[in-house]
Amino acid sequence: MVETRGSVAACKYIFRFSEGKAGMEDILGGKGANLSEMANLGLPVPPGFIVTTEACLKYYSLAKKMPFGLWDDILKHVGHLEKDVGKGFGDSQNPLLLSVRSGARVSMPGMMDTILNLGINDENVEGLAKVMGDRRPALDAYRRFLQIFGNVAMNVPLKYFEDFLKETKIVAGVRMDHQLDQKHLESVILGYKGIIEAHAGRPVPSKAIDQLKQAVLAVFESWNNPRAIEYRNHMRFSHDLGTAVNIMVMVFGNTGPDSGTGVLFTRDPASGSPGIYGEYLPNAQGEDVVAGLRTPSPISSLSITKPFLYTELESLAKLLETHYKDVQDVEFTIENERLFLLQTRSAQRTTLAAIRIAVDLVAEGIITKDEALLRIDPEDLTKLFMPRFNVKSRNHAVAMDRLLTKGAPASPGAATGRVCFEVVEACRAAQLGEDVILVRPQTSPDDIGGVLVAKGVLTSRGGTTSHAAVVTRGLGKPCIVGAEQLEFDKSGEYFSVNGQVVKNGETISMDGTTGEIFLGRIETVDPDLEDLDEAGLFLSWADDRRELGVWANADTGEDAIKALDMGAEGIGLCRTEHMFLGSERVNVVQQVLLNAAETEKWQLQNPEISLTYVKGSMPADLPASVRIFCSGLAELEALQVADFESILRVMEGRPVIIRLMDAPLHEFLPNYEKLVGEIAELRVTKGSSDILKERESLLDLLERSRESNPMLGHRGCRLGLTFPSIYEMQVKAIITACCKLLDERIKVSPEIMIPLTSHVNEFATLKNVLTKVADKVQKEKGHKFSYKFGTMIEVPRACLTADAIGELADFFSFGTNDLTQTTFGYSRDDAEGKFLRHYIDTGILENDPFLSLDTEGVGQLISMGVEKGRRVKPSMEIGICGEHGGDPKSIQFCHEIGLDYVSASPFRVPVARLSAAQAAINTV
Amino acid sequence: MVETRGSVAACKYIFRFSEGKAGMEDILGGKGANLSEMANLGLPVPPGFIVTTEACLKYYSLAKKMPFGLWDDILKHVGHLEKDVGKGFGDSQNPLLLSVRSGARVSMPGMMDTILNLGINDENVEGLAKVMGDRRPALDAYRRFLQIFGNVAMNVPLKYFEDFLKETKIVAGVRMDHQLDQKHLESVILGYKGIIEAHAGRPVPSKAIDQLKQAVLAVFESWNNPRAIEYRNHMRFSHDLGTAVNIMVMVFGNTGPDSGTGVLFTRDPASGSPGIYGEYLPNAQGEDVVAGLRTPSPISSLSITKPFLYTELESLAKLLETHYKDVQDVEFTIENERLFLLQTRSAQRTTLAAIRIAVDLVAEGIITKDEALLRIDPEDLTKLFMPRFNVKSRNHAVAMDRLLTKGAPASPGAATGRVCFEVVEACRAAQLGEDVILVRPQTSPDDIGGVLVAKGVLTSRGGTTSHAAVVTRGLGKPCIVGAEQLEFDKSGEYFSVNGQVVKNGETISMDGTTGEIFLGRIETVDPDLEDLDEAGLFLSWADDRRELGVWANADTGEDAIKALDMGAEGIGLCRTEHMFLGSERVNVVQQVLLNAAETEKWQLQNPEISLTYVKGSMPADLPASVRIFCSGLAELEALQVADFESILRVMEGRPVIIRLMDAPLHEFLPNYEKLVGEIAELRVTKGSSDILKERESLLDLLERSRESNPMLGHRGCRLGLTFPSIYEMQVKAIITACCKLLDERIKVSPEIMIPLTSHVNEFATLKNVLTKVADKVQKEKGHKFSYKFGTMIEVPRACLTADAIGELADFFSFGTNDLTQTTFGYSRDDAEGKFLRHYIDTGILENDPFLSLDTEGVGQLISMGVEKGRRVKPSMEIGICGEHGGDPKSIQFCHEIGLDYVSASPFRVPVARLSAAQAAINTV
Repeated sequence: MVETRGSVAACKYIFRFSEGKAGMEDILGGKGANLSEMANLGLPVPPGFIVTTEACLKYYSLAKKMPFGLWDDILKHVGHLEKDVGKGFGDSQNPLLLSVRSGARVSMPGMMDTILNLGINDENVEGLAKVMGDRRPALDAYRRFLQIFGNVAMNVPLKYFEDFLKETKIVAGVRMDHQLDQKHLESVILGYKGIIEAHAGRPVPSKAIDQLKQAVLAVFESWNNPRAIEYRNHMRFSHDLGTAVNIMVMVFGNTGPDSGTGVLFTRDPASGSPGIYGEYLPNAQGEDVVAGLRTPSPISSLSITKPFLYTELESLAKLLETHYKDVQDVEFTIENERLFLLQTRSAQRTTLAAIRIAVDLVAEGIITKDEALLRIDPEDLTKLFMPRFNVKSRNHAVAMDRLLTKGAPASPGAATGRVCFEVVEACRAAQLGEDVILVRPQTSPDDIGGVLVAKGVLTSRGGTTSHAAVVTRGLGKPCIVGAEQLEFDKSGEYFSVNGQVVKNGETISMDGTTGEIFLGRIETVDPDLEDLDEAGLFLSWADDRRELGVWANADTGEDAIKALDMGAEGIGLCRTEHMFLGSERVNVVQQVLLNAAETEKWQLQNPEISLTYVKGSMPADLPASVRIFCSGLAELEALQVADFESILRVMEGRPVIIRLMDAPLHEFLPNYEKLVGEIAELRVTKGSSDILKERESLLDLLERSRESNPMLGHRGCRLGLTFPSIYEMQVKAIITACCKLLDERIKVSPEIMIPLTSHVNEFATLKNVLTKVADKVQKEKGHKFSYKFGTMIEVPRACLTADAIGELADFFSFGTNDLTQTTFGYSRDDAEGKFLRHYIDTGILENDPFLSLDTEGVGQLISMGVEKGRRVKPSMEIGICGEHGGDPKSIQFCHEIGLDYVSASPFRVPVARLSAAQAAINTV
Repeated sequence: MVETRGSVAACKYIFRFSEGKAGMEDILGGKGANLSEMANLGLPVPPGFIVTTEACLKYYSLAKKMPFGLWDDILKHVGHLEKDVGKGFGDSQNPLLLSVRSGARVSMPGMMDTILNLGINDENVEGLAKVMGDRRPALDAYRRFLQIFGNVAMNVPLKYFEDFLKETKIVAGVRMDHQLDQKHLESVILGYKGIIEAHAGRPVPSKAIDQLKQAVLAVFESWNNPRAIEYRNHMRFSHDLGTAVNIMVMVFGNTGPDSGTGVLFTRDPASGSPGIYGEYLPNAQGEDVVAGLRTPSPISSLSITKPFLYTELESLAKLLETHYKDVQDVEFTIENERLFLLQTRSAQRTTLAAIRIAVDLVAEGIITKDEALLRIDPEDLTKLFMPRFNVKSRNHAVAMDRLLTKGAPASPGAATGRVCFEVVEACRAAQLGEDVILVRPQTSPDDIGGVLVAKGVLTSRGGTTSHAAVVTRGLGKPCIVGAEQLEFDKSGEYFSVNGQVVKNGETISMDGTTGEIFLGRIETVDPDLEDLDEAGLFLSWADDRRELGVWANADTGEDAIKALDMGAEGIGLCRTEHMFLGSERVNVVQQVLLNAAETEKWQLQNPEISLTYVKGSMPADLPASVRIFCSGLAELEALQVADFESILRVMEGRPVIIRLMDAPLHEFLPNYEKLVGEIAELRVTKGSSDILKERESLLDLLERSRESNPMLGHRGCRLGLTFPSIYEMQVKAIITACCKLLDERIKVSPEIMIPLTSHVNEFATLKNVLTKVADKVQKEKGHKFSYKFGTMIEVPRACLTADAIGELADFFSFGTNDLTQTTFGYSRDDAEGKFLRHYIDTGILENDPFLSLDTEGVGQLISMGVEKGRRVKPSMEIGICGEHGGDPKSIQFCHEIGLDYVSASPFRVPVARLSAAQAAINTV
């Protein structure tokens, strides 16, 4: 790495603060670059220099030898420091002490090592005492040095030092370190020396330069200590970055009541409120704050005790924030009323605070709206609208050992309620006003009733794109999936986690943002809606900036209201089969589907008879199956008219894309395996032969509609083509609903969407048939309005032949879930547990392609589809309605290829709005 | 249609024979074009002219009115004919009679109408008699005219005429029409007139021009008679072609013993033997031959009775054949020892004859080898190698009403044997030397044992690409699928077809070429191998001409021998999982698979321990699951070494592509539904709790490996990546087998193929691991040889990213079965019965994309894959190994995009060889 940078740069392993600046994080580390930046701004930074990350890498490439010339160079720069402050490194009368601190390009808080008070020894501690005018802080610095150096550079476990200090305090009868007097500190120093000699087999070097050399090497080494490696693995940081070493003149916060140390945020990182915020600990060095042995005061206390210093801090904070254009997290030390800044970096903050800060910074003229928009991670916006655990209540639960296990966080938000294993039971409990958590091995569309009433859903199988996950995200309720340690007892009475039994009806709490599952109740808090006002303003900026439309997937009027609330501009996907799943409907649907094949066969022989009867108007001589089919169809039509009316009414003329029935038949039918078992049982027990017969004939029907690969089977437009009456009924219902609303002078913009087109002829045939139906209904109802007729593009062949399809279609909507399945040849339901997780863990795949669009493969097909479609119809409306429509990275791609809109579940609409704006900003 | 051809052509509705020629079939029809051609060659064709197909179309476009000017033009041309032959149309003394015959562009034998002897009436029949010198043939012509005109132009059912004629013959005491004397004929004429008046309400027009006008319109009308429409639907001919009308001077084969009529083939159409072949009927008109009332003599009889005419026929035959460069089927009439040709066309022939004829025509210098190669439909070649029904035996069975039903012909050839419903039973019967027909609702890989021993396979479900169909085609044994009328009784004792019961063990016969299923035994005949010699020569020409390599799919040494016999140059696909399916193997495989997940988990924690043990060398402390897994793996390895050795030995250094395990796990596991039923039963009956426990734990394992969409699930390289030991074992076995053969100095060219690559990293990871295994084995065995390492390209993403994959792969093999499934999003197993047939029937899809490559969609991806692969590796070996590798149309495409080879099942190798040659010829 070093060699490739050319010989001059390769040899420059040291930068004085005056030589560095922000932006040089790669070689100076984050800390070093910011110290340089502050020094060059003229801020009160103690003098110092930085050994570069390249030196560290060279050290490793030389099999852990210090690079040639580096040590001499370090000594030379120490010489400069001596000159700057007029002290001598190792000098016995006026000793220069140094801090030696690690600092990588990326923040790895606490993972690597730091040594303070370096350069002290038995001799010069007295000289230091004289210079300080007090012997106590000098001794304190010495014992701190021994502890940290013994631990970091000589590998003596910290525990020995802590135990000894604790005993000393007991002997001394004091509680706090700073209450130890000189005599006690002297004995601590002696004790520490003994501990080090005993454990390391040699004493701490007394010569300052020996200390320094070992300290630099120790910091280099700390880049690869086990906790640093683990942290980088976890964060997916590269292991090839190396750490810089920051060597600075020590300043002392422990010289008495006029000294101290603290951390400040330039604004409140929790709420985003302006004004400095932070903590201060008098007569202390930095690690005292971290160790938590003494409770620091709020920084505002300084405004009373040291008002001039408080004012100075305020103005420095302002200066830093303006300079960095972001809220800063600053470490400082006060030595005898003189202020020094030791570090600054961008502050971590809550999403709410982040938004407020961004909005305020724009108002203050510090950053532009574009900069503000780029500041927020769109993904974080989902957290804004979800209930959260009360932090205290959650921490208490952890402390009480009530954390049961963790699963994969699939849909954010927190919930608490009683465990229900069965849908029926969940519905009953919910009706009684109880909060319910639905807990199942997995969910299927059969369970939708339970999912709808539950406060949260928890499954032991499946991944973050499983049925439970997708549905709950759509519904905006918390979900945890793949909690594999849950073992369900066969009795259906309880599950157990690592031996802990949780019974049906017991209360648990779950956090879909973190995946944590707790036994018992944890208080949840709703988002503070007042705070959301700023989010509204912020998102309106995003709306101004973005070029992509943001629509929502919504299946009911209620969903549509939610979608509008969240800022959606249209409905990109209304799944009509979801309307078939209500408990009163599914029976009708089953009867229709089970009799569809017979009916269509009959219809072929009786083409002159229309199957759309109003109840009661049915001729008497229809065959039984046709009769059942028709009456079911009429019932469904009435229900669907109401469904569509309600959505279109809410959307008031905004586009609403209604997809005709897509789901494979089996999703509406009784469970096959269950039925097989039931029949086997009935046969053996010689139970009621009537029931057996009925079950057997149901099984027979089921068998006919059973499929090896339902995902690639008899679904989508294939259903529409083989059972035309169902689509005809749906189109009739859509147009009827529109006519009703037009009667009330409510605008409508329906778009009828054919799912799963592979071949243009599938689309052409349906368009021909269904347009006739639509025109007929309009005529009957005395209305004439335009509607769009388009298709999902969700199999590769549709992309490949999008020019032919585009000749006939008014719009395309990419269904990226299925397109990803067919392009990879991965079944989403099977892949997750069987191999996809393994692929991601081992790096075969970088991302889960069901969460973030595979731009390389699937994206190539989408681009092709867009290009071919627009070639034949330049104004074609093109969007995306798969899960990816709410994923920031995927939205960036959608923007780049020029889609008109993305459609996401209502709760992800804000994410999409911001992502779309960021995409527009990023693509210049 | 007419209008678009420009005004001149649009007005020319009539062509004299001298104005037409072969190649003008579009407007003159096949018959007219060939009559013109013959007339212009100076052959003895009666004078005539043709009313074009455009006139017919115009007639329909004018709502069935004769186009303006047409009638005048017809009369003008009749005038020419009168002049040519010196007779008068309608003249009472020397009348001109005409034949008016239909003739479309495509041959539709017997579907449309023809009227002979037109122009005759009460008056001129006597004049005709005088001209003929005999009154009988004139009366015969008159009664023939009345019958045919009454039926065709006046819609009087034929039955009335036939009945009257029959009665007259009874009264006259004769058996044959030509035995009726003048008196009888007179009464027939009177009777026919009465019948016509009674049924049509008007008499036959006596004026010749009125007869002609009605006859022309009747021929136009016959284009759209019900049987013509049905025939065109069946043959998928367009309904927009129209028919021409051929108007010719009548010649009379019924004027006495020196006259007659016949049909000749210029060579034997059954065997291809040179020399004319056909039938002759003295004193008759053409329809007598067709009606089958008299038995014609072989044409050779003429060589005795009329040797000069026979010689003339021989030389005309030679002339026609040389002119048309093909065997002709010629209609002729002899009128008073004068020969007239009435029609010629290319003769229908058997495949064997076709090949022999083509080879002979080349030898005779009449056609070139290229022309010969284009003459044979490659598809027909499969019939050469299959047993066939003895024709007599089959016809007898039809006559005896033993035809049970028809299914979809899935694999050609005939078979006869006893019905077996169960695999075990089939195996037992086969062991006893009995011929078995396996009859099942459908087959699954579980049934392979039964398929292997059966002479033929019959299923009631599935399509021509179902499991049964694909496997039997590969094995070259007859198969009929989708015989939906078969109803299996629940008892498993019998099936019934339309009420007819067929019990287990009864004999049936089936023809996989036609789909016919018969009760009882029908004799089968094997192809005559001597005849196949000519096929060998013919195919060697194809080999010289083709540019594509032709390889075969073969899973065993036996298959490989078959492949070589059929002319394969390599093995394009050896499916290693087929080796796991023998009855002694499947148990071992199940144990390995059921313990694979546990073992791999254990392996992760014990990476230092190798899992490839020789039996007996296993450490004692392995967990049970690991122990079972390892010992199973060792067993399989030994079996696979033998498998690979046998194939590679046969192929002697020719390339052999071995695909590592691809099948989803469930294909090797017990049937889930059966197990569920079994357990339900055990639970209720409170049977052995040990068995129940064992079953339950098996169910548990099964459930873990169960998938919603196995086709898109845990299979292919996904298995190899998650359970690496299985692939490692297979590679070890391949390399070990190679080393053994090299020890015997037998050449080997193994190519290791990874199935189902979606992402380059899947391939990269496996290549890395498996190359190491291969190198290690080579080193151990002391050999160093090269082998290729490549991948199937069978999901869209692999095509889209073929450049990345091509960087690492030595070869690509397109798996077009899966690629078609994923590109369309159609599951092959489900599509056929549920919607694909409907799609093809209604024209949504032109072809079954699983039989003939969808060049528009799937082909686009393949082209992309080839282009991207060759861009990074110009010499990349690329082939195709799906079902399409044996399909002529698909092979044309493979040739066009520059593949190196196609690989087909052994029995389709000849088809592929010829198709490849045709592709090369067609692509100039």
